[in-house]
Amino acid sequence: MREAWIAPRMKDGVRTQMHYAKAGVTTEEMRRVAARENLSAERVRKEVARGRMVIPANIHHPQLDPMGIGLAASCKINANIGASALASDPQLEVQKVCISLKHGADTIMDLSTCDNTDEVRKAVIAASTVPVGTVPMYQIVQEAKNQDAKNIVIDDMLKVIERQAQQGVSYFTIHAGFMMRFMPYIAKRKMGIVSRGGSLIAAWMMHHHQENPFYQAYDQILDICQRYDVTLSLGDSLRPGCLADASDEAQLEELKMLGELTLRAWEKDVQVMIEGPGHVPLNQVEHNMKIERHYCHDAPFYILGPLVTDISPGYDHISSAIGAAVGGMHGASMLCYVTPKEHLGLPGPEDVREGIIAYKIAAHAADVARGRKNARNRDDAMSDARYAFDWNRQFELALDPERAKAYHDETLPQDAFKDAEFCSMCGPKFCSYKITHDIVDHFQQKEQA
Amino acid sequence: MREAWIAPRMKDGVRTQMHYAKAGVTTEEMRRVAARENLSAERVRKEVARGRMVIPANIHHPQLDPMGIGLAASCKINANIGASALASDPQLEVQKVCISLKHGADTIMDLSTCDNTDEVRKAVIAASTVPVGTVPMYQIVQEAKNQDAKNIVIDDMLKVIERQAQQGVSYFTIHAGFMMRFMPYIAKRKMGIVSRGGSLIAAWMMHHHQENPFYQAYDQILDICQRYDVTLSLGDSLRPGCLADASDEAQLEELKMLGELTLRAWEKDVQVMIEGPGHVPLNQVEHNMKIERHYCHDAPFYILGPLVTDISPGYDHISSAIGAAVGGMHGASMLCYVTPKEHLGLPGPEDVREGIIAYKIAAHAADVARGRKNARNRDDAMSDARYAFDWNRQFELALDPERAKAYHDETLPQDAFKDAEFCSMCGPKFCSYKITHDIVDHFQQKEQA
Repeated sequence: MREAWIAPRMKDGVRTQMHYAKAGVTTEEMRRVAARENLSAERVRKEVARGRMVIPANIHHPQLDPMGIGLAASCKINANIGASALASDPQLEVQKVCISLKHGADTIMDLSTCDNTDEVRKAVIAASTVPVGTVPMYQIVQEAKNQDAKNIVIDDMLKVIERQAQQGVSYFTIHAGFMMRFMPYIAKRKMGIVSRGGSLIAAWMMHHHQENPFYQAYDQILDICQRYDVTLSLGDSLRPGCLADASDEAQLEELKMLGELTLRAWEKDVQVMIEGPGHVPLNQVEHNMKIERHYCHDAPFYILGPLVTDISPGYDHISSAIGAAVGGMHGASMLCYVTPKEHLGLPGPEDVREGIIAYKIAAHAADVARGRKNARNRDDAMSDARYAFDWNRQFELALDPERAKAYHDETLPQDAFKDAEFCSMCGPKFCSYKITHDIVDHFQQKEQA
Repeated sequence: MREAWIAPRMKDGVRTQMHYAKAGVTTEEMRRVAARENLSAERVRKEVARGRMVIPANIHHPQLDPMGIGLAASCKINANIGASALASDPQLEVQKVCISLKHGADTIMDLSTCDNTDEVRKAVIAASTVPVGTVPMYQIVQEAKNQDAKNIVIDDMLKVIERQAQQGVSYFTIHAGFMMRFMPYIAKRKMGIVSRGGSLIAAWMMHHHQENPFYQAYDQILDICQRYDVTLSLGDSLRPGCLADASDEAQLEELKMLGELTLRAWEKDVQVMIEGPGHVPLNQVEHNMKIERHYCHDAPFYILGPLVTDISPGYDHISSAIGAAVGGMHGASMLCYVTPKEHLGLPGPEDVREGIIAYKIAAHAADVARGRKNARNRDDAMSDARYAFDWNRQFELALDPERAKAYHDETLPQDAFKDAEFCSMCGPKFCSYKITHDIVDHFQQKEQA
């Protein structure tokens, strides 16, 4: 389907949604986003032109169903997948893609750091109907001499980026805003750098005593993004890795720099998101959302969590869903999930499911809190189904129907108690809904009398 | 230990902590709370005298380690346990008590609605070192003629309440603020009444056309609470059961009434907490905390969740931990946990653990957000352990050490990679901590040079 939309644009030098939006052209991608978001196509076009919304849609990803990320759109979630050197199997990653799509991930990042990343990425993109993002730095290091970040050569770096663009990656995390002058801030921190990409760049900069290679090659990177319409996700190399480091100089100085890079990207019609923290005390989350909008000119904010405590390994999907929901309420446009395995190991398929559902909850809570049109409809339908003891409808409306049904049936098998007007929590005598039915009947009869 | 503290007070007519606090007497219970909260004993005494803090400590619960709930104290969590008619076994409930204590529940509510509630409660109180709360209405109905709420007789009701006080229950949920005049508000709601206790009272009021029996007998109930020092937890019969009903007339009118009942209890030196919602959109949580303080004169707010979406059955511990954390940040004193089985069935031991950890996260995030002294120490120690690759220390500091270790070992067994300076998430080549160590070394060498 998308191939037909893209074909007429193949002669254009710049093929980004922002380019067309600024030129007053409403693309099919914009129309599709408008339909999905219950917005007018013109509103979507204006938001994309202004940089307040991105449509990450590489021209080489024909299976993609276009989606929009931005303040005017519903809050999105990203699922990170990817193989590591210690566990690499393309089929396992495709399985994670399927789980991610099934449970409602809006984008998928393939963060593989294994030897066969091209192969894994190809499989992931082919299996995905949502945009696929990457952190090209990982493959750049894999292909450097001795797989050592210090041996990265800028020309080779650009070749990897272009190859990934050709494969159909729709957004790149690029850590171009991490400057040499920020190094002293890092030494002051409790946790230093916790971004993998950021730390690899740091290693290169320390060794060569040269400015960030992504910053040096930023214009060439923008040129690649223009041709394939890859959205830039400007990475926060210096995101806080613990509560103690939140909202410090390192984080905020890099954020300001990302704002400057945003304007440079927009000049070339390249779409931009900004990546955000990390670990942030709950009382600082709102402020973090506001300063991003201020420094980065309303470019969509794509936040990782943030975790609101450091002491919950094994449950960091919960700690971070708290921060993510509050971030979403205060304007974050996409929430990058965290799984229960965060800080402990590589997530498996079940962790992916746990992470996604936790983040669907956070994003939905944010949409309701922001008063998005119709956001509460599904909650209201659930409440109606509860009130009517319609268990099957409740399972249908649940974010994870399978688990809801399984948990229900554990203590009160449907076969034994089909259409039971109670559940095992209270039993038939203590069911408040039944009593409410009587009250409502009473008042209805009174009104009719 | 507590028996020696209580003995000299047995001759007193009124034996509540509030009574002594108002009289300028600092009890041993207050001293113990002061030590646990890192506050002065005088501060605790003043808070208790003012009603801003409660120490639920029935004189018949000698195993109790006294604890305080209030704005000046750290945020607490409650774990609900209890058997239902469909699943009743005292040993299973004792098992849930042990799990609750192990994972850090600050109080336990025994919500049993089975035939052998006295037996279950006795076992629960004996096994618990934290205050045990109940909803006496459940047993009152069990013992009414035909186990029908309509047949409740006020004198029998008071006998059940006194019997539970004699057993050592430290706080009672009493739904005394639900008035006849609120009935029409209920008929306007999507979900009506979702409080079990509230709905049983509604059934009684509808049948007898008489005011709430707990309201009628409120003075006698206060007299019982005085003698045993049972804290009243004024129940919110009309808490919203879905987002659509949040912050409506039914909820707010009852809350105002709870404020009046608070003043009446304080006149008799009875300690009071206020129970709160329920299901509340995330953007209304802060406001809900503020109006409780306003209407209820700063009596500690004990909130159930609130859930910030209705569509997450199977994951309601997460949905509600989001609301609970934000509620805690804005002044809730105790968070009543919700388990993954909420809305689906009776929680088992594993659900209890999941619920408690989710709420430990919420309460801790709230303490950090409120800037409580030393609240972040454990997070900082965790960050130091992470930075030093000290896995065993990380497990020790985790809210659930067993799970943290199990998840870690799943992908990178400790035996095979003892003291490994990396984890399976990134592998040895992409470890950002290692690179940060180099940067810090570099700057330290520069400073020394």
